[in-house]
Amino acid sequence: MTYRAPVTDIASTLKHVAGLDQALADGLYGELTADLVDAVLEEAGKFAAERIAPLNTVGDKLGTPFKDGKVTMPPGWKETYSDWAAAGWNGLMADAEFGGQALPCVINAACLEMWNAACSSFGLGPLLTQGAIEAIAAHASDQLKTIYLPKMISGEWTGTMNLTEPSAGSDLAALRTKAERAGDGTYRITGNKIFITYGEHDLTENIVHLVLARLPDAPAGTKGISLFIVPKFLVNADGSIGQRNDVRCHSIEHKLGVHGSPTCTMVYGDDGGAIGYLVGEENRGLAAMFTMMNNARLAVALQGVAIAERATQQAMAYAAERRQGRAPGYAGEGMSPIILHPDVKRMLLTMRGYTQGARAICYMLAAEIDRAHLGKTEAERQAGQARASLLTPIAKAFSTDIGNEVASLGVQVHGGMGFVEETGAAQHMRDARIFAIYEGTNGIQAIDLVTRKVALEGGALVAGEISRMRVVAAKVAGTNSADFGRTAARLTEAIDSLERATGHLLAALKSNPADALAGATPYARLFGLALGGTALAEKALAQRDNGAAEALGAEATGTARFFAENLATAAPGLEVSVTSGADSINAIQLQLAG
Amino acid sequence: MTYRAPVTDIASTLKHVAGLDQALADGLYGELTADLVDAVLEEAGKFAAERIAPLNTVGDKLGTPFKDGKVTMPPGWKETYSDWAAAGWNGLMADAEFGGQALPCVINAACLEMWNAACSSFGLGPLLTQGAIEAIAAHASDQLKTIYLPKMISGEWTGTMNLTEPSAGSDLAALRTKAERAGDGTYRITGNKIFITYGEHDLTENIVHLVLARLPDAPAGTKGISLFIVPKFLVNADGSIGQRNDVRCHSIEHKLGVHGSPTCTMVYGDDGGAIGYLVGEENRGLAAMFTMMNNARLAVALQGVAIAERATQQAMAYAAERRQGRAPGYAGEGMSPIILHPDVKRMLLTMRGYTQGARAICYMLAAEIDRAHLGKTEAERQAGQARASLLTPIAKAFSTDIGNEVASLGVQVHGGMGFVEETGAAQHMRDARIFAIYEGTNGIQAIDLVTRKVALEGGALVAGEISRMRVVAAKVAGTNSADFGRTAARLTEAIDSLERATGHLLAALKSNPADALAGATPYARLFGLALGGTALAEKALAQRDNGAAEALGAEATGTARFFAENLATAAPGLEVSVTSGADSINAIQLQLAG
Repeated sequence: MTYRAPVTDIASTLKHVAGLDQALADGLYGELTADLVDAVLEEAGKFAAERIAPLNTVGDKLGTPFKDGKVTMPPGWKETYSDWAAAGWNGLMADAEFGGQALPCVINAACLEMWNAACSSFGLGPLLTQGAIEAIAAHASDQLKTIYLPKMISGEWTGTMNLTEPSAGSDLAALRTKAERAGDGTYRITGNKIFITYGEHDLTENIVHLVLARLPDAPAGTKGISLFIVPKFLVNADGSIGQRNDVRCHSIEHKLGVHGSPTCTMVYGDDGGAIGYLVGEENRGLAAMFTMMNNARLAVALQGVAIAERATQQAMAYAAERRQGRAPGYAGEGMSPIILHPDVKRMLLTMRGYTQGARAICYMLAAEIDRAHLGKTEAERQAGQARASLLTPIAKAFSTDIGNEVASLGVQVHGGMGFVEETGAAQHMRDARIFAIYEGTNGIQAIDLVTRKVALEGGALVAGEISRMRVVAAKVAGTNSADFGRTAARLTEAIDSLERATGHLLAALKSNPADALAGATPYARLFGLALGGTALAEKALAQRDNGAAEALGAEATGTARFFAENLATAAPGLEVSVTSGADSINAIQLQLAG
Repeated sequence: MTYRAPVTDIASTLKHVAGLDQALADGLYGELTADLVDAVLEEAGKFAAERIAPLNTVGDKLGTPFKDGKVTMPPGWKETYSDWAAAGWNGLMADAEFGGQALPCVINAACLEMWNAACSSFGLGPLLTQGAIEAIAAHASDQLKTIYLPKMISGEWTGTMNLTEPSAGSDLAALRTKAERAGDGTYRITGNKIFITYGEHDLTENIVHLVLARLPDAPAGTKGISLFIVPKFLVNADGSIGQRNDVRCHSIEHKLGVHGSPTCTMVYGDDGGAIGYLVGEENRGLAAMFTMMNNARLAVALQGVAIAERATQQAMAYAAERRQGRAPGYAGEGMSPIILHPDVKRMLLTMRGYTQGARAICYMLAAEIDRAHLGKTEAERQAGQARASLLTPIAKAFSTDIGNEVASLGVQVHGGMGFVEETGAAQHMRDARIFAIYEGTNGIQAIDLVTRKVALEGGALVAGEISRMRVVAAKVAGTNSADFGRTAARLTEAIDSLERATGHLLAALKSNPADALAGATPYARLFGLALGGTALAEKALAQRDNGAAEALGAEATGTARFFAENLATAAPGLEVSVTSGADSINAIQLQLAG
């Protein structure tokens, strides 16, 4: 099954939900024009569909064999990667000073979605590289930037993030990797890291590891963590590749999915210590890493959207071809295409609704990240930063949860064929499963939302978000259009639920934190449903206003209506779980280990 | 991770939800005593945990290699299967006349759960064999019974179900396999079947295929389908193994999960026609197959329960050992076990609640199947039959849906380790994925529930079910116990939602079938939540009444409360989707193929 880049919906979401038209008009994006945006999206969609998508099955089947410390990437990957990097895609969002295209985050987000929909294992490498670029750009010395950024931005070198250790996963305070001052301004790194994505591969001549480690005299906990650049090969003064550094890949994981992405166990300092270069200040590494991790959370959220889009396309195509039974009202010969059966339609519309809803949330977030950087005033930038920080955990948790659900529905639509690996539907489900786990599990996202974001600005930030949603619901009601059915009423119920649940959490945070923590996951879902539902309605309204081609407007309206009437309807139940379900959790004692 | 048979909860569910104590007291099960039941459960649990569970990983890893028409089962499987059959487990429910143990369906159901929790690929073979035994016992001639039943009941031979063809999956009317009268009372079968579980293997000396095929002069559609026995080896007059029949395994599927279960493409009649023996009457094959399929639906539902139990045990054990962060109120040294984090508890309680709720529904169904066969009066048997027919699609859809969800949560609880295959959590998720598809997809189950079952007895059957639930909710309210929290209120809300949704569907079935079909899936889920929630409350009430050991009663009450306050809370939203979500589905036109 091939992938077609959904450029129309992507562009419409950018314009009508992420405010791209307005931002262009306001000059937020400098010289960027709507025409250029369209051209970039078209080209990216073409590259994703024609060059990257064919890598998806071979990557899954052959994986990345590991032997004698070396990882061999699947056939065809290196050539496609080189062409992709040569076309400038890797540096889309990076500083022009170091060779980047300096395009806004919204454009990069749309492209990230397409690379990852075409092949998420392929998309993962650049995703990590972009994170490393951001961390270096924001925190490293000019000298380090000059050495590393140009090659990383061009994609000649890739980057990694080395956080996790066997005892330090969600809780980085526990990490043990050591860094010692070498006396010459460099450091010697010793320790083991696990789950290092693209920690070793043969796509590029060098790999730049960003490594969290602890100095001998560092304070305990997260305040004693420093960030280092540890290149696979040292770089000579003239920029050429020098000696091999004391870092190696010890093994790769045998995983459920993303088989084309090597997940490595890395060993630092077997031979006395890997040479590392401090990024930012000593003991301030976690702050630097968090800058990068927030943007990586958007990127992983986009992986959720991407896999959902891919699974939806495949299920739609299969359901249009496959014939079984006779759907009500079917007047054709013989069996009807299963796409006509109401129960199958429910599955497909659920897939499409969640996918487009999650896309809308992610692009909204990308626009706020842009505003945080490019806003004309300090107040504007701060507002962008605040809203981005609120939307980040929602985007990550909602998009990757629905990624799992949509991919699983994709298997279901295929019936028995879905369980057969050759069909390809099962691969999406396997690939999707990690997105809800890495870059902060979705539980961590929900806890971040509840404990750090809800109380921002004394609750005013969420209140503002809710007001914004109410405006959309009121506009839908104002259309008096039968096409929207009960959309306005259902969205209003969801927003009401969100508002009450928020009020409950604001109070609980002060009086009973365990109560708030117990409600975190249903609250994050509730927020995602209300936000995704209103965003789809907003897009539908804009398409109608703009007199979009009839079919397109009808599709947007129909999808928004389905979402409101069949998916957002879960909101009141989630509210009840948030506001009065916690006692039943905190009252129970589960059995501790022997 | 090992498996411990949850014999305590199984026994409690049998007694307090499936009415085992009462049935024993009423003499419904003849000479069977409570002590014997306990002994059987203990022994089955022991065999499952000690002998079958160790097969699970090797089956997944090595699969069932296929070469030159032969399937090689994984190492250790044949010996364990032989010992299992020799112990009489295969014939637990079969007629004593042919060597079975003639134990009731409830006992077999509990054992099926345990075999499949230990290793679902192992459990699948006997599951199909039992189905074939039932079909033969109910419909075949005495001669065929005498030849086939003793060896199949003893487990010396296994059985298969050959329904599906490439163009005939959910819609059997389309099947094309041919049967021609040979003139000597036998038939010649020609055609291809796909997705044949255990169609070929080396566990036993013979395999008895039950095959649906069409006679040359048969009416079109499902009224022209006949059922045949087609043995792999013909059977001589003295019962010994004779000539190889003209049937062969052409290939096996490369599947997402249940790798230890060979899924075969079968070719009949390459060499002139496989010899087949008619079961029942010509053109009445589908009716015979349906008898068997209903019981197979319970068996597959139990696979959902089984995988959920296995995944829950593994996640609980991991969460009790794994330490990260500090949970609120944790007073110990260093990091706390993650089982203490409220968000992780929510996941684990969701897993336990769904698992035990689905178990309760399945055992309830098994008890009704017993009542349908063993009831003292015709009225009693009819009542059992009616309720079994109502509960079947709910049990199948709910249990296998939650099987997927619980197995996926199990991966999530493990964090990054869950994505690594060696951990074993991912295997449960892969294995579980087929249960919602085979033996009638869950969409088909929901449609069966809505179009055939809801209207039974003019709606009185469902009304009776609802009344029964209300009694339980009232009893919970009557305890005035703080331990139950808001259980009674939440269950009542769920039951109210079920009642209103049922009323809507009864009307829609007459006026607008597409509306009813569009609401089928959320209705089935709603029914499962209300039924599972009340069943857990019923079990908790009984344990409290019986003065069960304090911890046990507290666990049952806590689980019932969690289910009511956090899972059954989805009911009102599902009701809204059933009663007013259909228009948005039926209004949309999805794109047909090219």
